[in-house]
Amino acid sequence: MVITITAFDRSPDGGKGLARDTRVRWALEETGQPYDVRLVSFRALKEPAHLALHPFGQIPTYEDGDLTLFETGSIVFHIAGRHAGLLPQDANARARAITWMFAAVNTVEPPILEFVTAKFFERDKPWYEARLPFTAINVRSRMQQLSTRLGDADWLDGAFSAGDLMMVSVLLRMRSSGILDEYANLAAYVARGEARPAYKRAFAAQLAINTRQS
Amino acid sequence: MVITITAFDRSPDGGKGLARDTRVRWALEETGQPYDVRLVSFRALKEPAHLALHPFGQIPTYEDGDLTLFETGSIVFHIAGRHAGLLPQDANARARAITWMFAAVNTVEPPILEFVTAKFFERDKPWYEARLPFTAINVRSRMQQLSTRLGDADWLDGAFSAGDLMMVSVLLRMRSSGILDEYANLAAYVARGEARPAYKRAFAAQLAINTRQS
Repeated sequence: MVITITAFDRSPDGGKGLARDTRVRWALEETGQPYDVRLVSFRALKEPAHLALHPFGQIPTYEDGDLTLFETGSIVFHIAGRHAGLLPQDANARARAITWMFAAVNTVEPPILEFVTAKFFERDKPWYEARLPFTAINVRSRMQQLSTRLGDADWLDGAFSAGDLMMVSVLLRMRSSGILDEYANLAAYVARGEARPAYKRAFAAQLAINTRQS
Repeated sequence: MVITITAFDRSPDGGKGLARDTRVRWALEETGQPYDVRLVSFRALKEPAHLALHPFGQIPTYEDGDLTLFETGSIVFHIAGRHAGLLPQDANARARAITWMFAAVNTVEPPILEFVTAKFFERDKPWYEARLPFTAINVRSRMQQLSTRLGDADWLDGAFSAGDLMMVSVLLRMRSSGILDEYANLAAYVARGEARPAYKRAFAAQLAINTRQS
């Protein structure tokens, strides 16, 4: 029984690797798990068949035998818990790595998503130009705190973990704005993530879908 | 060695239970774990001693012997993993409960936080009145999807779990706006959470701090 995940048939980012299936692909590649992908159109996301898998009508989902999961953080955690390579064996180190997973999605990603989605969904609103710098303040505040904690370490807590996988993925969203590059150690941290062979395979796989001839 | 958590010495909500230490208190009460609380002032949050525990300068933190954790979701998960009462034994049911923990903090809470923090931090901005209804659209979209999935069930997936603890806590933020009450089954779900003896003890403990004579 092979794992099946879902991904956009056409990602809104055109293959920059920012759609969340890339995070799951990366975790599967780090742990050496083969997987199939089922592509879903934007229209099909909100249809009953997909909503049965994912109540919020998003990608990715994860199916393995009689287990169906949604929510990227949960899927990455499930993969990391079943296969070596993404979480330390030591109980305390493992708890700290999981802490960084939650910090990525609940502390660092929310202001970043607010900034990024404003650029996407509020560009035509009368408040857009005035409000965007205000939004960026919250992003920079979090990134400065993260930069201070990371210091000159390679990864957030010892060896590369699922916490780094999630944090690098979240920070990648800020590259095109130029804000990531304001924090040299965070930019280098993201580059270390992207240089991992497992990331490269995950990125190439999603790019191939988004650049194929239809 | 007793668990020590941190909480605001004066919560911005004045004791409504919305500060995130309530979530951790609730998890500790559900699992019957005694704990100490160290109160932290707003000023001390950003000082080196606290930043060493929590790189983003927030509460709560969790200390147990030589383990220090931050990030509410991670702390609740750690408690749930060590003590019975918050996660099912069956591996698939456990993975689904963890999915709801991540869904609470990464899918449902971000639009809610955007709405709530706008009311708090953007009330004096020229765009405030025009933008708030726009923000509420995203909140209602997520709450409608969650309402559809919950249906007439008591909890999100079988017995009460850490996923429900987190989701109820996130939804509580929307009560004062009146938006929670637009979804009768979600309002009843939150009320079921609040009716649990463990929640009542957690709520009373944080209220006592916020209403004490200083």
